Amino acid sequence: MSRIKRIFIANRGEIAVRIIRTARALGIETVLGVSEADRDSLGAQLATRAICLGPAPAPESYLKVATVIEAALGTGCDAIHPGYGFLSENKALAEACAKEGLVFIGPSPENLDAVGDKLTARSHAEAAQVPLVPGGSVETVAQAEAIAGDVGFPMLIKAVAGGGGKGMKRVDRAEDLASQIDMAMSEAQAAFGDGRIYMERFVTVGRHVEVQIISDGETVLHAGERDCSVQRRYQKVVEEAPAPNLPEALRDGLRAAAVAYARHIGYRSLGTVEFLVDVERGAFYFLEMNARVQVEHPVTEMVTGLDLIALQISIAQGDKLTIAQDDIRFTGHAVECRLNAEDPARDFMPSPGRVTQAWFPWMPGLRVDTHMQPGAMIPPYYDSMVAKLITHGSTRAEAIANMARALDVCVLDGVTTNAGLHRAIMADPGFAAGGVDTAYLAGLLPGLDKESAA
Amino acid sequence: MSRIKRIFIANRGEIAVRIIRTARALGIETVLGVSEADRDSLGAQLATRAICLGPAPAPESYLKVATVIEAALGTGCDAIHPGYGFLSENKALAEACAKEGLVFIGPSPENLDAVGDKLTARSHAEAAQVPLVPGGSVETVAQAEAIAGDVGFPMLIKAVAGGGGKGMKRVDRAEDLASQIDMAMSEAQAAFGDGRIYMERFVTVGRHVEVQIISDGETVLHAGERDCSVQRRYQKVVEEAPAPNLPEALRDGLRAAAVAYARHIGYRSLGTVEFLVDVERGAFYFLEMNARVQVEHPVTEMVTGLDLIALQISIAQGDKLTIAQDDIRFTGHAVECRLNAEDPARDFMPSPGRVTQAWFPWMPGLRVDTHMQPGAMIPPYYDSMVAKLITHGSTRAEAIANMARALDVCVLDGVTTNAGLHRAIMADPGFAAGGVDTAYLAGLLPGLDKESAA
Repeated sequence: MSRIKRIFIANRGEIAVRIIRTARALGIETVLGVSEADRDSLGAQLATRAICLGPAPAPESYLKVATVIEAALGTGCDAIHPGYGFLSENKALAEACAKEGLVFIGPSPENLDAVGDKLTARSHAEAAQVPLVPGGSVETVAQAEAIAGDVGFPMLIKAVAGGGGKGMKRVDRAEDLASQIDMAMSEAQAAFGDGRIYMERFVTVGRHVEVQIISDGETVLHAGERDCSVQRRYQKVVEEAPAPNLPEALRDGLRAAAVAYARHIGYRSLGTVEFLVDVERGAFYFLEMNARVQVEHPVTEMVTGLDLIALQISIAQGDKLTIAQDDIRFTGHAVECRLNAEDPARDFMPSPGRVTQAWFPWMPGLRVDTHMQPGAMIPPYYDSMVAKLITHGSTRAEAIANMARALDVCVLDGVTTNAGLHRAIMADPGFAAGGVDTAYLAGLLPGLDKESAA
Repeated sequence: MSRIKRIFIANRGEIAVRIIRTARALGIETVLGVSEADRDSLGAQLATRAICLGPAPAPESYLKVATVIEAALGTGCDAIHPGYGFLSENKALAEACAKEGLVFIGPSPENLDAVGDKLTARSHAEAAQVPLVPGGSVETVAQAEAIAGDVGFPMLIKAVAGGGGKGMKRVDRAEDLASQIDMAMSEAQAAFGDGRIYMERFVTVGRHVEVQIISDGETVLHAGERDCSVQRRYQKVVEEAPAPNLPEALRDGLRAAAVAYARHIGYRSLGTVEFLVDVERGAFYFLEMNARVQVEHPVTEMVTGLDLIALQISIAQGDKLTIAQDDIRFTGHAVECRLNAEDPARDFMPSPGRVTQAWFPWMPGLRVDTHMQPGAMIPPYYDSMVAKLITHGSTRAEAIANMARALDVCVLDGVTTNAGLHRAIMADPGFAAGGVDTAYLAGLLPGLDKESAA
């Protein structure tokens, strides 16, 4: 297949800048599709060219498949990188690319089908003998009651087309089933245009651990796992690699299951298989596979030395992997803090606005992926994440110490951020012990002085 | 001695920002003395406080000892960091600090005396049995002729109070001695207020190699050497650590000589002993000792993992070193490119002005020390260096490849820079071979397309 020469980036924020960085290093041109709100963004300034897709609201710009395709063709691009979120796992975009002769820098439409519908994804997991949380499809209250009878409360309702916590409902008692199912169905319909739901056991104590997959369709490699258990309302806040305090047998089991799953569905691209891990029981359950580059991919890059975006581009243009599993070595530990423009003192309400100063200097072990600069505008329309601070250390303790220092040194002025929350996590003995579960952050928050978290 | 709580920084540009970075990591406040031209500089924004020292020209602001002392005292500082250049090796400032009870973050006035006067420095080298380039003090043409008779042409005239290439004159023939001595004396008088000169053999083929010294006055450590042979008109352009293709016996000899010299003069602080190295003859000659942090200190930090500024602060406040020579380990290779706002197509004329975009993203092995940001003003009054790109690699070839990639990815728009020159050096087989001498760059320049060097 011919080499990619010009990539259309159908995304924004830090991931657009991240893609531009690797493209520049590879000598590939970039065209960035921007909304009206992002015309002056850093990505727009750094790309070889920027082109406006439409008004600020994402449905009128970043989510318009036909507009993205047209813009990519009109600017002479030969490939589209969808980043994460937005159209990154959209089958229609992948199909349109194929039709128009554009390389979609992601998996095939068939792959997207196999993982996008959560029920299909579950059936593939079953077929690949990857453990699943007990549960099943729900169309009627009677079905739900039957599943609950088999599995037992608490249960978790999820949207079949879902992701990112939208449409999720915890149900603790049989008498709440009917109303929660109703609500979940309408939320799912509103968020995804698809009201289908399913239900599974709510695993009350668990860690979120995910495995990075790199596959050229023949060779399926894993690049180790990430622990993303520090979450607030199903949103990841801190991630790390490798997962701390995980018995080696469990770590090996997770990695093997992820590779088996990807191989089973004939996956080709970067992808991530997410698991819920019950360390006490030595058990893990398949959650879903994300068919895109993950926000938290830098922690994997920091411990492996890989450039995952470069690999993703290479695979998309038809190259075969030139590395084998044994070539992927793991060195030290990496931690990522998602710096959001949000106000912890106001229930983490987004805090958009104009950045007056942004300074992320070189420090030992620090990497910063960001689109912030002095004068940058954080529009209210999108995700509030403004920077990812990633630190590496030869040990986990060193990575955490480097992060604590970086949080004290770096500057982001003009908007309120969650830097104080990250400081509190980095200073918390519970986090330092390693291996917190997804309930950890909800337990830590009430004890934090609202001021100090800011 | 009490801990330093607030440092007055009597400098500007990237080194002011570098000092602020470590101070912030150590929890130390900073006050930055700025000229009128630097009121809006990054350093002024990042320091705990900024205070104006006077008009833009350095003699009216950065070089005024009394004003600096007054500003430091008036802002409640307990220490002064002089950076490099300006007052960094000024005995009057060190003495005034002692008198006013301020910690001078540098060596003692006695140390400054021992190394500041090049003739005194030479006599100490002789006493410490450190090899010297043959030569001596020159007050009359007759003296100069006598030295030239002993040593032979070409000779190099230098200012006793000099540094940075000012007042340096190469003399190839006896008939030029009188006129060149005259010119050197007046230049030295103008530049340093001290017309004294001396003369030594001009070593035509040589490498500039310097050894980093860290001494608390009792323990004298070296942190390896740096090769700074890539120079243009006595100005360093590219530096690296360790020095490539240096026979181990010679490397050991340089390090031992530097330690012997520092020990002989009872040196206490960071310092650098510079040598001219003749690899073919296996010989080296003492040039001078710099009693300050060096511009190129980051290459040493990248191969040792040390924070030299933190060590300098610690020593200044009276701490004893907690590391021994064996604790300083060397890992991989580091290269530094000095990015200057200057125009290679116009004989490297400074190119001041307003920066429109400055982007130095995280990349594998890259460190950037800079005060550049979008909107930054580069005033015409000072040094034209705007950023130091430093790359590390497990091998020298990897460090160079990382630098080549960084030069392609990083952005500094709005002013003309020497980035193209650095690209040419990184791509040059002569540089790649390792161990070029100080004549290297003058030989490379004429072959470069003026456009491509820009």
